[in-house]
Amino acid sequence: MDSIFQKKLKRVFSPNSIAVIGASDSFEKLGYHVMKSLVLGGYRGCLYPVNPASERIWGLKAHRSILDIEKEVELAIIVVPAKKSLDVLFECGKKKVMGAVIISAGYKETEGDEGKYLEERMRELSEGLEIPIVGPNTFGFVNVTDKVNASFTYEFSLIKEGGTTIISQSGGFCHLIGFLAIEERMGVAKLVGLGNRVNLDFHHTVRYFLEEDSATKALVLYIEGMDEPRKLFNAISQSKAKKPIIAYKSAKNVKRDVASKFHTGSLAGNYKIWKGAFRQFGILEVADSEELIDIAKALEACPSMRGERVAVLSGQAGPGIIAADVLEKEGLKLANFSEVTQRKIDELLPPLAIRTNPVDMGPAWYSPKTILSILKVASDDENTDGILFLNMFASANLKLVKEMVRILRDLEPFNKPVIACLCAPPGIWDEEIKEIDGQKGIVVVPTPERAAKTLANLYRIGSTGR
Amino acid sequence: MDSIFQKKLKRVFSPNSIAVIGASDSFEKLGYHVMKSLVLGGYRGCLYPVNPASERIWGLKAHRSILDIEKEVELAIIVVPAKKSLDVLFECGKKKVMGAVIISAGYKETEGDEGKYLEERMRELSEGLEIPIVGPNTFGFVNVTDKVNASFTYEFSLIKEGGTTIISQSGGFCHLIGFLAIEERMGVAKLVGLGNRVNLDFHHTVRYFLEEDSATKALVLYIEGMDEPRKLFNAISQSKAKKPIIAYKSAKNVKRDVASKFHTGSLAGNYKIWKGAFRQFGILEVADSEELIDIAKALEACPSMRGERVAVLSGQAGPGIIAADVLEKEGLKLANFSEVTQRKIDELLPPLAIRTNPVDMGPAWYSPKTILSILKVASDDENTDGILFLNMFASANLKLVKEMVRILRDLEPFNKPVIACLCAPPGIWDEEIKEIDGQKGIVVVPTPERAAKTLANLYRIGSTGR
Repeated sequence: MDSIFQKKLKRVFSPNSIAVIGASDSFEKLGYHVMKSLVLGGYRGCLYPVNPASERIWGLKAHRSILDIEKEVELAIIVVPAKKSLDVLFECGKKKVMGAVIISAGYKETEGDEGKYLEERMRELSEGLEIPIVGPNTFGFVNVTDKVNASFTYEFSLIKEGGTTIISQSGGFCHLIGFLAIEERMGVAKLVGLGNRVNLDFHHTVRYFLEEDSATKALVLYIEGMDEPRKLFNAISQSKAKKPIIAYKSAKNVKRDVASKFHTGSLAGNYKIWKGAFRQFGILEVADSEELIDIAKALEACPSMRGERVAVLSGQAGPGIIAADVLEKEGLKLANFSEVTQRKIDELLPPLAIRTNPVDMGPAWYSPKTILSILKVASDDENTDGILFLNMFASANLKLVKEMVRILRDLEPFNKPVIACLCAPPGIWDEEIKEIDGQKGIVVVPTPERAAKTLANLYRIGSTGR
Repeated sequence: MDSIFQKKLKRVFSPNSIAVIGASDSFEKLGYHVMKSLVLGGYRGCLYPVNPASERIWGLKAHRSILDIEKEVELAIIVVPAKKSLDVLFECGKKKVMGAVIISAGYKETEGDEGKYLEERMRELSEGLEIPIVGPNTFGFVNVTDKVNASFTYEFSLIKEGGTTIISQSGGFCHLIGFLAIEERMGVAKLVGLGNRVNLDFHHTVRYFLEEDSATKALVLYIEGMDEPRKLFNAISQSKAKKPIIAYKSAKNVKRDVASKFHTGSLAGNYKIWKGAFRQFGILEVADSEELIDIAKALEACPSMRGERVAVLSGQAGPGIIAADVLEKEGLKLANFSEVTQRKIDELLPPLAIRTNPVDMGPAWYSPKTILSILKVASDDENTDGILFLNMFASANLKLVKEMVRILRDLEPFNKPVIACLCAPPGIWDEEIKEIDGQKGIVVVPTPERAAKTLANLYRIGSTGR
């Protein structure tokens, strides 16, 4: 079954045609929001709304049943009530769809036996029909690369296209990360909510995105718990595609497993075992959603971090000390500049400031050119592996970042990762930060602590060999 | 000297008259930015620009020297080059100012001996003249309560007035926190950069803001290191004002003390000793700037957290599990609802969702009234001490938060702390979040992890007895 699924997943996640069963023109129905996501999200394939009660939906001809559609349908998105979903799925089988997204809830995540019974029938039926199912009880998925927003949240289409694919056991988590991604300019390839995983699980999707999806450059897994984690780790170790993998493991500390048990029908398991497995299989574990966003951005835009020696270049001493402190805590080191580098920096800065690492670039506030020269000199030093560049706004250095943007346009990308923190009141450097972030090997994050942590994670992931 | 200083500090931080020595009309000079901060920041006292080269500055009559000002001057802000500052300070003494802010750099923080010599002379002179000095090498201070922006960064005047006073060894840190405060709607009473602390140190200012400043409801200390920490802890233990104190200790892990040594002329010291002292004196230590912002907001707006039992109410299961996980890690517990509470929640929600704690409020997406009823029921339960309320945006629940704002206006404040996370794409709920944050016992933070952490810090600070 697994190999059949693998062949079909291309058509599930990048379908040429989609039927939305339970499509609607009424804002109160999820079928409205799924249509909105596809239409306004720019879906370029054939789109067929299905609803026996309507003639037209979202301006398109509506069909009474998926079987009334003349042409081929690759993906069915099902948003009818749970009780009706088996009949609909049976019709999808007749129509020979390649896969389904079942957004409807009301299965094993609910109290009582009825939902569990329905889900068991769904499993049997879908296996007989050989239909891989994303869900049930999922928000769907978003293929940012190909503009397929197969979810009930149109706003995911505002996410920037990028190389990170997120596979999640929770739709709520996808919403959290998706919105943070928009806010923080993180690029995404695919965002997938596995839901109850009736027949499509982490190991199928991980294998697919590692091996078959060239747009995916790195994977993020949000895991609460699963019945057979071994399948996931096998899929990872057997794959020849060495893409970096980041894991966010939740339900680590809850003494009562009730929450995750109900949510996705599986035990959270012993966290220590998970932790060991992550280490063994070269997976970087992150502790919270902000850390996840930052490292995903850095992975996408920065060169590799090949050692642990960091140059801290800061417009103000305090934030430089804060960052250096986090660096040391995270196991990185302040670089010892080579003599040549130190001499160049001494020439660039007056003796008013600390010119050894961490470098206080305060006196260069008015000279973006000097600041960029110091960045270049530090990055070219063979004794450094990464750069932290921190600069807090002050009324007097207003023009600094604006000018930097202009000069940066003509510069070669930095050959070491540069993590920057350019903190300013809302509205002041927003446009400039947008322009710098993700360009020329530079990533911009909100605080000095997060900048240092990101560099540490970049170093760790570089040493996993993935 | 200390008691003379204490009497003068009221006039330093809330002066009725200010002379800016080195005031300027040229954007390139810090004296321009200090004038801008005072004028546009709404300073209501008498303001005297001093500069022998100008007739008028910022539309005001300029004076050749502070001695040419006929009326009394309570505070002198000095932005002349280091070499001239001693002469200026001597004149300030003749003028009998109550205190000075010396923004100029070029003292012991610089390489070479000249700066150190100048600072030593400044110390002797100021002690003879009995002038308390904020600085040198500082951004200044901002008294948000009384609209005295005595700094070179006008934008600090955009910070919301509140009860938190920040005393910092680093001006860069003040900029970081100040801008985060604007972004995250944190209220501030006073923001003070001590700089090189030539004669005015943590213990003077901590005593003053604890005992003499009624607008200060809580203190934040940013500490790199100091020569006599005992003086600080004595000031805290001897004060009868039991205001909560939060410490951010940097330079904890740096193996080389060079950074903080240069920056503010003191050793960072052994972190373990600091940690023990924080515990002994009931000071809450935070690990990063975001944690600091969140707990400061919660301290200001929420009722006390009297126990460790938390109700997690989430519109989506995943974020609820994430938050519960952090809660348990931080030593809090999921509350066991009373029978009455559980029955009421069961009545409010359909059996489609988990209705025990953490409560999955997904089915109430369309009913802000139901959601607020559940919040009220959980908050009224004698088995709960605090509430986490999490709700991710989805296209379908767009109106939810808008409606909640409307209903909340007529509700009594919650009697337990409510930390909320309302995550949405930029622009969608911004106005609503602004309206909810800080009202009715509710504080809004950006992620579920930060929400849980904030509640844990609120519990910890409640148990310090301060």
